[in-house]
Amino acid sequence: MSQLVAVGTVAFDAIETPFGKTDKILGGAATYIGLAASHLNVDVALVAIIGDDFPQSFLDTFESRNINIDGVEIVSGGKSFFWSGRYHHDMNSRDTLATELNVLTQFEPKVPSDYKEADVLLLGNLNPEAQLAAISQMNNPKFIIMDTMNYWMNTSMAALKEVIARVDAITINDEEARQLSGEYSLVKAANKIQTMGPKFVIIKKGEHGALLFHREQVFFAPALPLEEVFDPTGAGDSFAGGFAGYLAKTEDFSFENLKSAIVYGTALASFCVEAFGTERLLEINNMDIQRRLSMLKSLMQFDIEIH
Amino acid sequence: MSQLVAVGTVAFDAIETPFGKTDKILGGAATYIGLAASHLNVDVALVAIIGDDFPQSFLDTFESRNINIDGVEIVSGGKSFFWSGRYHHDMNSRDTLATELNVLTQFEPKVPSDYKEADVLLLGNLNPEAQLAAISQMNNPKFIIMDTMNYWMNTSMAALKEVIARVDAITINDEEARQLSGEYSLVKAANKIQTMGPKFVIIKKGEHGALLFHREQVFFAPALPLEEVFDPTGAGDSFAGGFAGYLAKTEDFSFENLKSAIVYGTALASFCVEAFGTERLLEINNMDIQRRLSMLKSLMQFDIEIH
Repeated sequence: MSQLVAVGTVAFDAIETPFGKTDKILGGAATYIGLAASHLNVDVALVAIIGDDFPQSFLDTFESRNINIDGVEIVSGGKSFFWSGRYHHDMNSRDTLATELNVLTQFEPKVPSDYKEADVLLLGNLNPEAQLAAISQMNNPKFIIMDTMNYWMNTSMAALKEVIARVDAITINDEEARQLSGEYSLVKAANKIQTMGPKFVIIKKGEHGALLFHREQVFFAPALPLEEVFDPTGAGDSFAGGFAGYLAKTEDFSFENLKSAIVYGTALASFCVEAFGTERLLEINNMDIQRRLSMLKSLMQFDIEIH
Repeated sequence: MSQLVAVGTVAFDAIETPFGKTDKILGGAATYIGLAASHLNVDVALVAIIGDDFPQSFLDTFESRNINIDGVEIVSGGKSFFWSGRYHHDMNSRDTLATELNVLTQFEPKVPSDYKEADVLLLGNLNPEAQLAAISQMNNPKFIIMDTMNYWMNTSMAALKEVIARVDAITINDEEARQLSGEYSLVKAANKIQTMGPKFVIIKKGEHGALLFHREQVFFAPALPLEEVFDPTGAGDSFAGGFAGYLAKTEDFSFENLKSAIVYGTALASFCVEAFGTERLLEINNMDIQRRLSMLKSLMQFDIEIH
């Protein structure tokens, strides 16, 4: 079975939306990535760090999805990373109420030896130094994907550029793509970012979908229009997880196949936002996913005669 | 040849963008609709009102595209509608610098008798009373499309609802769809607007594309990602013109064919924004359009096995 290594946060989240609020629930980028990718039937390993305050039941969640957590370091006496946020009515903007890094400040990724030969490495949004450390432990992966955010552009641009130079694909949101490239046009931004290293640039526009750029080629996948978005937390990471999971499963890193991977990512993200936290990712089965892929196909498919 | 009647403004525009500014150039919703639709080789007639300050050269522009202007009333001694606006750097927001209604306040549409049997009627953004007057002059058109804006919701909701009840399709932007329906979710908004009359609801999201809703079905067309947007003025009307032109040409008002019409509209809008005003719509030929349809096809097409 193809292997996928996901490096990132495993954490506590506390979320408020116009629909309600949660206690400390299972969260973190690697969590969403892992759960989404696990639906593709690939062998997923998480590389992360938590404190010993992390409940066994949360760890059992990973086991229930056959996700390997040998690479999740448990710091005895340490506290797990905690994030809390409140979404506004439009669900596109949010206030961060708390960010307690805790054990995350001492994170030094350790890829389990059984997974050093994995084909696909996905670096969740993290300190670029930690991302570099993970890359250096892998034995020539076929495809490396990274996520990042503006915070690292503001604080660690040099290290970030080193990571960017070593990956095959980067996922980044529209504002961050503009900041990273200094270009307002997303087409120009994506072209400039390609010159920094990645052959593929994926620009995430949240509810407005995602763009995949590769040389002169562009593909666009809209987010599925939903009656209600309940909680957007983890949507971007579920997208990345579905995307990376599909690539690991198919072992085809062509532009054409990346398009399909983007659609898989879009499908997984569309479930994620339907309930708080990881709830929907844990409920759905393959039939649900196939149905949603079909909906995405009708959403985008048209038949026009071109002369 | 199939006929299309477009009712709306023919006007002077003065536009400022980060790239430059224009004098009073040819503008108005009906202008963009007519020029876009004229590329579909249908028999387009404009119904509008201007003053005798309108230069013959602007009217010659319509003749050059075989657009019938018998329904464009010229008020002797009157001044033409004038709009002036300045776009911000993001090209998505703009300040209106001037709106001089002038002869538009006395607009009573008069559909030329040769066009009363037209299959398709497109009502540009206008006073709902004028839209109703145009509908009543037509002899049972097969398909009526209307555009509108928040201003009419705030000032003439009763008349607006009468128009909405009588059309087959409405084009409206996302914020206006929310205002009209009282629903934040665009899916819910579109469903509610369908209960008000139109079988088809088209929600325009500017650079984020357009959604077509019909009962349980949804189709999405992204805007073509461009290196540079030069001037967004008229993009929505060019979209509507391409859409209506395609429907008039094909005389097929099924959901499937409306999808293709949306893609045509998207292609025409993508040209419109590449230069000031109507410049690009006057330059392009059928080969340019076919090439752009092909680009839209690759932008949206993917091949995924669904089980």
